[in-house]
Amino acid sequence: MEPLTEELTRLLDGRWASVRRDIREHLAAEAEKGAFDTETLDAAAHRERIGEQLRALAKTGRPRLGFPTEYGGDGDIGAAVVSFEMLGFGDLSLMVKSGVQWGLFGGAIHLLGTRHHHERYLSDIMSGELLGCFAMTEIGHGSDVQNLRTTATYDPDTAEFVVHTPDRSATKTYIGNAARDGRLAVVFAQLVTGGESRGVHAVLVPIRDEHGTVLPGVTIEDNGVKAGLNGVDNGRITFDHVRVPRTALLNRYGDVTEDGTYTSPVDSDGKRFFTMLGTLVRGRISVAGSAGNATKRALAIAVHYADRRRQFAGRDGAEVTLLDYLAHQRRLLPALATTYALHFAQEDLVAELHDLQTGTPEDVAEADEIRQRELESSAAGLKALATWHATSTIQAAREACGGAGYMAENVLPSLKADTDVFTTFEGDNTVLLQLVAKGLLTHYRSQFQDLSPLATARFVAEQFVGAVIERTAARRVVERIVDASPARDDDDAVFDRAWQLKLFTDRESHVLDGLARRLRAAGRDNAFDVFNAAQDHVLRAARVHVERVVLDSFVAAVDRCENAEVKALLDKVCDLHVLATIEADRAWFLEHGRLTSGRAKAVVAGVNRLCGELRPHARTLVDAFAVPERLWRVPMLDWV
Amino acid sequence: MEPLTEELTRLLDGRWASVRRDIREHLAAEAEKGAFDTETLDAAAHRERIGEQLRALAKTGRPRLGFPTEYGGDGDIGAAVVSFEMLGFGDLSLMVKSGVQWGLFGGAIHLLGTRHHHERYLSDIMSGELLGCFAMTEIGHGSDVQNLRTTATYDPDTAEFVVHTPDRSATKTYIGNAARDGRLAVVFAQLVTGGESRGVHAVLVPIRDEHGTVLPGVTIEDNGVKAGLNGVDNGRITFDHVRVPRTALLNRYGDVTEDGTYTSPVDSDGKRFFTMLGTLVRGRISVAGSAGNATKRALAIAVHYADRRRQFAGRDGAEVTLLDYLAHQRRLLPALATTYALHFAQEDLVAELHDLQTGTPEDVAEADEIRQRELESSAAGLKALATWHATSTIQAAREACGGAGYMAENVLPSLKADTDVFTTFEGDNTVLLQLVAKGLLTHYRSQFQDLSPLATARFVAEQFVGAVIERTAARRVVERIVDASPARDDDDAVFDRAWQLKLFTDRESHVLDGLARRLRAAGRDNAFDVFNAAQDHVLRAARVHVERVVLDSFVAAVDRCENAEVKALLDKVCDLHVLATIEADRAWFLEHGRLTSGRAKAVVAGVNRLCGELRPHARTLVDAFAVPERLWRVPMLDWV
Repeated sequence: MEPLTEELTRLLDGRWASVRRDIREHLAAEAEKGAFDTETLDAAAHRERIGEQLRALAKTGRPRLGFPTEYGGDGDIGAAVVSFEMLGFGDLSLMVKSGVQWGLFGGAIHLLGTRHHHERYLSDIMSGELLGCFAMTEIGHGSDVQNLRTTATYDPDTAEFVVHTPDRSATKTYIGNAARDGRLAVVFAQLVTGGESRGVHAVLVPIRDEHGTVLPGVTIEDNGVKAGLNGVDNGRITFDHVRVPRTALLNRYGDVTEDGTYTSPVDSDGKRFFTMLGTLVRGRISVAGSAGNATKRALAIAVHYADRRRQFAGRDGAEVTLLDYLAHQRRLLPALATTYALHFAQEDLVAELHDLQTGTPEDVAEADEIRQRELESSAAGLKALATWHATSTIQAAREACGGAGYMAENVLPSLKADTDVFTTFEGDNTVLLQLVAKGLLTHYRSQFQDLSPLATARFVAEQFVGAVIERTAARRVVERIVDASPARDDDDAVFDRAWQLKLFTDRESHVLDGLARRLRAAGRDNAFDVFNAAQDHVLRAARVHVERVVLDSFVAAVDRCENAEVKALLDKVCDLHVLATIEADRAWFLEHGRLTSGRAKAVVAGVNRLCGELRPHARTLVDAFAVPERLWRVPMLDWV
Repeated sequence: MEPLTEELTRLLDGRWASVRRDIREHLAAEAEKGAFDTETLDAAAHRERIGEQLRALAKTGRPRLGFPTEYGGDGDIGAAVVSFEMLGFGDLSLMVKSGVQWGLFGGAIHLLGTRHHHERYLSDIMSGELLGCFAMTEIGHGSDVQNLRTTATYDPDTAEFVVHTPDRSATKTYIGNAARDGRLAVVFAQLVTGGESRGVHAVLVPIRDEHGTVLPGVTIEDNGVKAGLNGVDNGRITFDHVRVPRTALLNRYGDVTEDGTYTSPVDSDGKRFFTMLGTLVRGRISVAGSAGNATKRALAIAVHYADRRRQFAGRDGAEVTLLDYLAHQRRLLPALATTYALHFAQEDLVAELHDLQTGTPEDVAEADEIRQRELESSAAGLKALATWHATSTIQAAREACGGAGYMAENVLPSLKADTDVFTTFEGDNTVLLQLVAKGLLTHYRSQFQDLSPLATARFVAEQFVGAVIERTAARRVVERIVDASPARDDDDAVFDRAWQLKLFTDRESHVLDGLARRLRAAGRDNAFDVFNAAQDHVLRAARVHVERVVLDSFVAAVDRCENAEVKALLDKVCDLHVLATIEADRAWFLEHGRLTSGRAKAVVAGVNRLCGELRPHARTLVDAFAVPERLWRVPMLDWV
């Protein structure tokens, strides 16, 4: 690797660099053995392969990273998330299956359970002895999980919960580990005791015995072939009055005494539910990060191809590499720049998660509640933007490689198919952005009532007082830069960082203020209609907020870069990310008098200019991701 | 079907309604037998299935539609294209395999060959007795086919051509029917005689004997698993000095006498090559149409799902259907409106093809050359826009169906994967749009030199005189509407058809004029750089031209609609298509003073309003596509 590339990699690898290196080595070694050459496997063989890979991963001990030290874990939350993210370089079925096992299933027992559950299960979960499911989504309720219909009814006569699927729509579906491997399920259900519903809680329900036989009362169907991720055994689960002991309830946030009395440290049902959901924020963060790594792999492939493949004669009659064409640069380079931006935002998010959640459960519970809500909101927003970015960038990479990009051996097809559902799982992106907007409108001071549009609209009508921008470390860097810079008025101002930052901040405030004004019209009778009529505005408010946060992170990363050459290069990458983002939304800036038409044209010209200036560095920029070579050096690269 | 739906279907079915009905019945009957339930088949079984389906299709006699009556065909070109398009409702591997067999392979022999070839092959091709390949693309040259490197060297001693692959990059690849079924290949190669290269010509080369054994000198490799279309047996072919008789040359546009003298009715090598390529325009048109039909199928699935699936409580606490949310309407309804627009543009294009190419080869050869070039340009442009529209719309449909949309049984995954390569094959979309721009800049009066950026830039520098809009039937309707309408200045003007049409026409002229001015700066030394720096402008010029042509067709279709209720509905659909198109490009309109910011906001508000107004008609609009029910009624629809 060239020194510049190495320096860039060091910067990208950041705080958990050693974890990144470990996983790279593991993936590279497995890839050399052909472990990820799965394109010709059918679903059954692919599941078998991923099962093997899961065991190999368990043997490395890395799944222990995020669990508490007292049960044999390492208690390093940031490292745990980064290690999941890094699996995004390999077969994504392995990433998802690991995420189900150690992130969702293990994480729920860890974070929603208490000592009793930890002692009994965590060791076997970490070692991969006990595989399990996270049974939340139902056929009828995926986004609106507060209204799940599976029930867990307490029977004081036997001190048991009766877990039941009342009808087809309450069937658990798309549950990873369900169709083949899972033995125990964390089942989210409406807890009923004393004839009263207490909202959604999680109950542990064994679904298979140690020989893999499905237990009585449990019915499991295979979800069958999917668009991608066919190494993961997703399935549907129904329960027919399945009885589990009282202690099967993951009772950190709500418990039932032997006589059926319900107790909870959290007063409101809504707040309890969102507190429980909040503990699962790691999953969303991991998905955003692995989407980013899959995107990097796709870009490494497409950029190397475009750098070699030639077509049509140019100057002097010699054939021109694809990456020398402006149109091709525009397909790949702005997406590459935004991939950098999202990487740094992701890193900041992981650090914030780590810092907030490190310590005893009591420490964590006492952490600033507003920071917790901000974290959840940032995780939701970044997950939405990062996964949509993955979908569009991998699509662009596929098209940029022409027919070769369509061949399975060149990996882009599986990257596309596997990541496609990332925009849906761990929260549908559109729903997540509404959650972000809600957080912005309520300054995270909400009563955690529910996710519904109505509640948001009503809340805002009563309480909204104006946009507040949180005080992150990155924000402080940004404000320093803005304060130090004089106002400019020439066309080159589009390359001025302070101008760019002000434009993003101003857009965020303006969009949010306007939204709040619209939503204030909502009364009891028309709240839904007012909210719905503004839904595009709601989504925009969330998006421009996340774009501003992402830019803050990128700017702060450039700012802390000590190597002048690397800094100069990253500065240009940051410019390209900014100008491409403004270009895509310049209609808004024009409509709202934030850009003159001359300045808007300068933005477009700036993107073209930066594409040309970054073209010679395109390989360096993708090489710095340090995707193991065996994972990007696809056959088509040897043919051009 | 409701009367309104029926009426709409009648309008959509248009001139070749009976062919559409026939194929619908065929597909419906096959689908009832489970012929298209291929999601669990591996590639080998899928190929086998598609082989059976190809034979079933041959038995219906429909592949004869486009071939000359004297050899047992029907001589109905429009019907032939429509019948291919309609296969877009079913398994797309069948559409593509049929397209290879009867469109590309059969079409090349029909249109590039002469009586001798017709007599010997056409009957067996139509019946499916003789399966063949269209061997054009090479590893090193896909878009720039004029520089293919396979050679066909005439040997006067034996009166044979020696067909040879000089190196790996000259290997034919992605060739349909090559890996398993093809026995004869139309091989595109540089014809060499008397030591002189005569440019690309097509030669018939047997590749397998009647038992399926690969012939000596021919090497075939399987392209293996692809992102989609795995029912088609794509492969690589190399030739090691394979000898074929002199008569194997498809000699309509160029021939070699026994002694090796080259003769051609077309003087220039460039013009000859483009004339040869031009005969293959049907393939591009068929791809655009079948992409449209795959899009309709995806929309039928997603709209029916969104019309039933409910999530989150709305007014009165009842759960709201997805399609009642503005954000969901915006995902699906503008795409639905544009699908209508593209349908009518496609219909006009097929009619133009039919009218131009019907008659004896001599009639066809004498047809207005400018109309021929316009047809090719329109086909290229519509193919690009229709296939990109398919990619983005099917993606949106998948996401709009959440996790259910990711399950193979719900069809969206295969629609996405199969259509993905449509943006690449039959001409990469980016290259095709450059071809369109070239046509616009040269008024189709080009010397048919070559496809290269250089030639275009140089040509324009010398000859461009300004935009000309062709006189189609649709254009005459449009001009009548514009002429009859007074100028308006209120915000409701955005719903005024004349205003919309003027906006599109004006944008086209302005973009093209500006492009010509930029390209005029090109001299001999800097032509490539000037062209390349303007490449985004080139692509934009093509796109806005095609968008104008598409709108013309839609407006003309609304105009000829006789049923008032249907007309009123289509009028709104047309408004939504127009306003969504303007919305997506409103930055340009703002930058160029074509929209005030107030008017631009009225466009956005107009899209929202139309989404609401069309929501109650969404099912009608997709039902009118008359996709056979078995092909859209996927399992998830029975679960909500």
